[in-house]
Amino acid sequence: MANITKKVSWSSRADESGAAGEATPLLNGSDKRQHSRELSGGGAVFQIGRLSNVDLEEEITSDEGSHRDRPKEIPHNEKLLSLKYESLDYDNIENQLFLEEERRMSYLPIAAGSGIPQIKCYLNGVKVPRVVRLKTLVVKVCGVICSVVGGLAVGKEGPMIHSGAVVAAGVSQGRSTSLKKDFKIFEYFRRDTEKRDFVSAGAAAGVSAAFGAPVGGVLFSLEEGASFWNQMLTWRIFFASMISTFTLNFFLSIYHNNPGDLSNPGLINFGRFENDSVAYYLYEIPLFIAMGAIGGLLGALFNILNYWLTIFRIRYVHRPCLQVMEAMLVAAVTATVSFTMIYFSNDCQPLGPEHTEEYPLQLFCADGEYNSMATAFFNTPERSVRSLFHNQPGSYNPLTLGLFTLTYFFLACWTYGLTVSAGVFIPSLLIGAAWGRLCGIMLSAISATGSIWADPGKYALIGAAAQLGGIVRMTLSLTVIMVEATGNVTYGLPIMLVLMTAKIVGDYFVEGLYDIHIKLQSIPFLHWEAPATSHWLTAREVMSSPVTCLNKVEKVGTIVDILSNTSTNHNGFPVVVVQGDSGEEPAKLCGLILRSQLIVLLKHKVFVELARSRLTQRKLLLKDFRDAYPRFPPIQSIHVSQDERECMMDLSEFMNPTPYTVPQETSLPRVFKLVRALGLRHLVVVDDENRVVGLVTRKDLARYHLGKHGLEELQLAQT
Amino acid sequence: MANITKKVSWSSRADESGAAGEATPLLNGSDKRQHSRELSGGGAVFQIGRLSNVDLEEEITSDEGSHRDRPKEIPHNEKLLSLKYESLDYDNIENQLFLEEERRMSYLPIAAGSGIPQIKCYLNGVKVPRVVRLKTLVVKVCGVICSVVGGLAVGKEGPMIHSGAVVAAGVSQGRSTSLKKDFKIFEYFRRDTEKRDFVSAGAAAGVSAAFGAPVGGVLFSLEEGASFWNQMLTWRIFFASMISTFTLNFFLSIYHNNPGDLSNPGLINFGRFENDSVAYYLYEIPLFIAMGAIGGLLGALFNILNYWLTIFRIRYVHRPCLQVMEAMLVAAVTATVSFTMIYFSNDCQPLGPEHTEEYPLQLFCADGEYNSMATAFFNTPERSVRSLFHNQPGSYNPLTLGLFTLTYFFLACWTYGLTVSAGVFIPSLLIGAAWGRLCGIMLSAISATGSIWADPGKYALIGAAAQLGGIVRMTLSLTVIMVEATGNVTYGLPIMLVLMTAKIVGDYFVEGLYDIHIKLQSIPFLHWEAPATSHWLTAREVMSSPVTCLNKVEKVGTIVDILSNTSTNHNGFPVVVVQGDSGEEPAKLCGLILRSQLIVLLKHKVFVELARSRLTQRKLLLKDFRDAYPRFPPIQSIHVSQDERECMMDLSEFMNPTPYTVPQETSLPRVFKLVRALGLRHLVVVDDENRVVGLVTRKDLARYHLGKHGLEELQLAQT
Repeated sequence: MANITKKVSWSSRADESGAAGEATPLLNGSDKRQHSRELSGGGAVFQIGRLSNVDLEEEITSDEGSHRDRPKEIPHNEKLLSLKYESLDYDNIENQLFLEEERRMSYLPIAAGSGIPQIKCYLNGVKVPRVVRLKTLVVKVCGVICSVVGGLAVGKEGPMIHSGAVVAAGVSQGRSTSLKKDFKIFEYFRRDTEKRDFVSAGAAAGVSAAFGAPVGGVLFSLEEGASFWNQMLTWRIFFASMISTFTLNFFLSIYHNNPGDLSNPGLINFGRFENDSVAYYLYEIPLFIAMGAIGGLLGALFNILNYWLTIFRIRYVHRPCLQVMEAMLVAAVTATVSFTMIYFSNDCQPLGPEHTEEYPLQLFCADGEYNSMATAFFNTPERSVRSLFHNQPGSYNPLTLGLFTLTYFFLACWTYGLTVSAGVFIPSLLIGAAWGRLCGIMLSAISATGSIWADPGKYALIGAAAQLGGIVRMTLSLTVIMVEATGNVTYGLPIMLVLMTAKIVGDYFVEGLYDIHIKLQSIPFLHWEAPATSHWLTAREVMSSPVTCLNKVEKVGTIVDILSNTSTNHNGFPVVVVQGDSGEEPAKLCGLILRSQLIVLLKHKVFVELARSRLTQRKLLLKDFRDAYPRFPPIQSIHVSQDERECMMDLSEFMNPTPYTVPQETSLPRVFKLVRALGLRHLVVVDDENRVVGLVTRKDLARYHLGKHGLEELQLAQT
Repeated sequence: MANITKKVSWSSRADESGAAGEATPLLNGSDKRQHSRELSGGGAVFQIGRLSNVDLEEEITSDEGSHRDRPKEIPHNEKLLSLKYESLDYDNIENQLFLEEERRMSYLPIAAGSGIPQIKCYLNGVKVPRVVRLKTLVVKVCGVICSVVGGLAVGKEGPMIHSGAVVAAGVSQGRSTSLKKDFKIFEYFRRDTEKRDFVSAGAAAGVSAAFGAPVGGVLFSLEEGASFWNQMLTWRIFFASMISTFTLNFFLSIYHNNPGDLSNPGLINFGRFENDSVAYYLYEIPLFIAMGAIGGLLGALFNILNYWLTIFRIRYVHRPCLQVMEAMLVAAVTATVSFTMIYFSNDCQPLGPEHTEEYPLQLFCADGEYNSMATAFFNTPERSVRSLFHNQPGSYNPLTLGLFTLTYFFLACWTYGLTVSAGVFIPSLLIGAAWGRLCGIMLSAISATGSIWADPGKYALIGAAAQLGGIVRMTLSLTVIMVEATGNVTYGLPIMLVLMTAKIVGDYFVEGLYDIHIKLQSIPFLHWEAPATSHWLTAREVMSSPVTCLNKVEKVGTIVDILSNTSTNHNGFPVVVVQGDSGEEPAKLCGLILRSQLIVLLKHKVFVELARSRLTQRKLLLKDFRDAYPRFPPIQSIHVSQDERECMMDLSEFMNPTPYTVPQETSLPRVFKLVRALGLRHLVVVDDENRVVGLVTRKDLARYHLGKHGLEELQLAQT
């Protein structure tokens, strides 16, 4: 069997060894006009031709178009789409096995990389290698303890959210591949859909524990992850969040020597705003909006600087030793700058009876005084934020705050994206709190009535929200998180207003930080909607073709060859029936089978001939597929003898008999909507006779995005 | 042309005159085994046969099965599904007109009964007649003012939410059919999808204004309405909520003579819990859970009583004069009971310096004292709730609270579902607050340490949450609403816990109140997921067939006859092409056209012959379809002469060329998922040759539900 297409390589298998095949061709330039419907006569593999007539002259810039067919390595840039990332499959394979199990049970309880961008991608349906492994968790936890204790400009909330997701993914599977231990529980959850739900819940629980914000956690999961809003799922996520907060509160109450008092939730506590200082007035609204705009601008600046830095890192700092050196350099510079600032600072505040500092640092100040700059630099970032929110007016010099903002801004920007476990939430809040308090101080200096209405703590809070919103561009979830973390509802409205302004202003210049990192890693991330001007693109132009199809009853050798062929690294194969004996009639779609299913079938040698000879052979159960999830063995590890290659495999019982399909004239937005809403991994494109003409996967849809010059098409590359 | 099917009537047109055709047949018993593929030879209407082989012996109870084919009027019960309600169509018709407009504009700014159950249905995709009309709004507003002022056991929040939705729907359309005024703005929003988004936002804004809970409003819209979570949509809803709160706060601040102070949001304010009284401890958690369970039980009792009452009302109190009399009776009884209770109450409290009542009522008490019972009965319900939350310990006798709970429970239960504008939120909160406070008083009496930990106000809040949760069964949104309305985050965790317990306990007995009313009105409401045991049902069993199909180029007379025929009251018709001249070849699907589109085409006389003769005729634009939205003229109002009947109409430019389809073997859950996630109104079922075999609409899916004896099928009736 050699009649296998070598033209196109679509979704690549995640190469665990890291050696990406440099000979993998770069496929499917939309200017190819091939029209090949090659039907292998007596064989079994169909290559159904591509009827492409794309016409995107004005959209594709000429320099991009020129090297789209060259299969060489392309210097990394954000106009690429990586082939490294696989999709998750949230579609349910309703084959006969599944239906039988459903009937038997009848009431079955239906129940990452570096941080937030990875979890966001996972929930979007992208399989980021090793993102939810136990090893990742261990490294992460150790890493974050070291970075925070070491005084870097980092927060611990991103890693906490990620940890929550990892724990949830592990619990849901009831086993760990790293520990090689299978607890034989929760076997029914061994599906992508169930695991996604657990990861959502875990991320929510992480936010919940970090900020004491259970509702905020749920909204975070939804705003960043979900596409199909399901009430049952929300309910479960909410429950997980609640339990997480509850457990944490319980242990915190013991730690604080007040066992049983559950009123003060959250590991990162910004302190409660007292009722007498929280009022705000109509004339402050324009000030809040202005601060939101400043936050948007500073956030955009932060993101642009971090973008350049990340590009630099990808190009020049990709060896581990260089990465370690950079991390050490950052640590050294952070320490040096901090101490220099503290040394030259003369912002000494009296240690009066009403001071609110828990651990005032005297340093170079006189007795009975403490150093404000040290308060900002020497504490953990959360504690610094709390001081900026709650210390009484006059605790900080404007100069101190200005200098601190300036240095911390650049330090935080440099630190984010280092190869250390680090969050950007808390540093952003700290930067914002510093310049927000500065605004408050200046406002009370300007106004006649003074500090009564321009409480610097209030402005610190608004500034913190503005800065964080300008960087990460969340609105709903961030509002709730801020409200829950400060324990005060009154500021809900100003915080919302500020976050919206920051988002609008920031979005004008550049995307949010997480989206930038997702783009820079060339992850095929599906946004909420298809690009606005893509109604003229149809499935025919978008789909990948030719498609390798399988017969309903297929020769084992053919299947092994297809799976072994590195250029046909699809993960789903349409199953077709040939009409008429001659094989001349076109092949109609009758199902879809996944690579993983084929591998399990080969492993268990479910061959027609063997079934006949060994009648007592155990019937394959859905459990056998679950046990192999999620790391199915590679095809190379399965030995198939020469005799067995001549056997036949009957796929009809295992395939999904009713895959979702679209006609080839369907527009991109309609295809997009279907794939996004149902979380599909493979969408078969058929002609008006129900014959397979192509396959649409995540990468085909993620390729198109709206650039400055209209619709742009990204290149696909094996980065 | 008479070859039109009279067998099946699916989605009925909303009969504005109210005279439902009693001769309309009751269709499509799944035991029919007809296999007719009647192709009208030279004609143009196809009736594509039904290949049904359903086998649901154990699921269909015999008494139901016996009268399923009788087309007579069926006594109303909850096992019916009404044919009165039409679906909304959230699918986008991407015909040529649409595509041309999209190309021209390129960057179009893409932004569009009686109460909560109706809005819930509208957002689910059910067209409830007159639910978003201006007249409804006016009647509603007057009604709610009268009922609340009149002292009925009702709240004003349900009507406020509904009003928000009506205003939003009106604004989105830029015109009012009731006022016969078209402002010629927002024309692009004249689509079901856009209008739904506006209605979501309006409902959120209503909650936001009622409780001062902008985040709660967003969550309310999502929890009760949305299916496809879209970040952009959420963002817009959030914005609407925020503006709503802001505007209200501004006017309230003027009303309270403190212009500009925006810190106290919400029309219904339950007062702020002060920080010193809010602590709670671990040992209180079991108490909270127990109260949640009580709330669930009482809520279930409330719902069951109200269910019986509603059944009684549907059977015997359906004439307007009887309805008015019942409302008057309720008012009289409410007043009598209240005064009797107050008269016989001897719960006189001293009017000390620290009393918190704004308007204490002396009545029959001694000087310097006020009557507690009157505080509970004589205030507006919101003020009573606030008193129960915040009055100092000892303000109420336990006996007063017990009697009040008992009477108010039955009064509220009787009042809800009267033909007056009324909400159930506030009465539920009041009942719960009363027995919650009673619990608190009893707990402090039992415990040695007394009133320090068992603050009765805290228990009143928990009780209120439990009771409301037990009745309406919301969790996430209600938590946030309660937190925002009380201005305190600390109780978030206990409220959540209580709401969850109440929901779990209540769901064990009976559904939520809104769901009960939706069911009693036989509205085809689609839940989140298909029934758990329905994997064995396929599209073939579920779909309606035969389907009336149209040719791509169709005779005007045929179209008029089909539209006029009351038994073929479909709203969407598959468009097919016949292959071969003989008409013997089966007809392949090539598009889908809606009734409304056909009517607009007929109205504008878009006939092939006329186009040839009058070359200068204005081309039909998408605007012409929008102008007719949402109340397309009935077919009877369009005059088609005998000559015109012989003309032909070319549908290819106007139809949706790529409707979503499923093969007939697709299981019900897969069909359900597709329809629910994409908000489809019509889903075409095709065979493996892409020939039309049936059509799945909302009613086909809503028919199946999980009863006590497994999967049950509801009857369809013209109620």
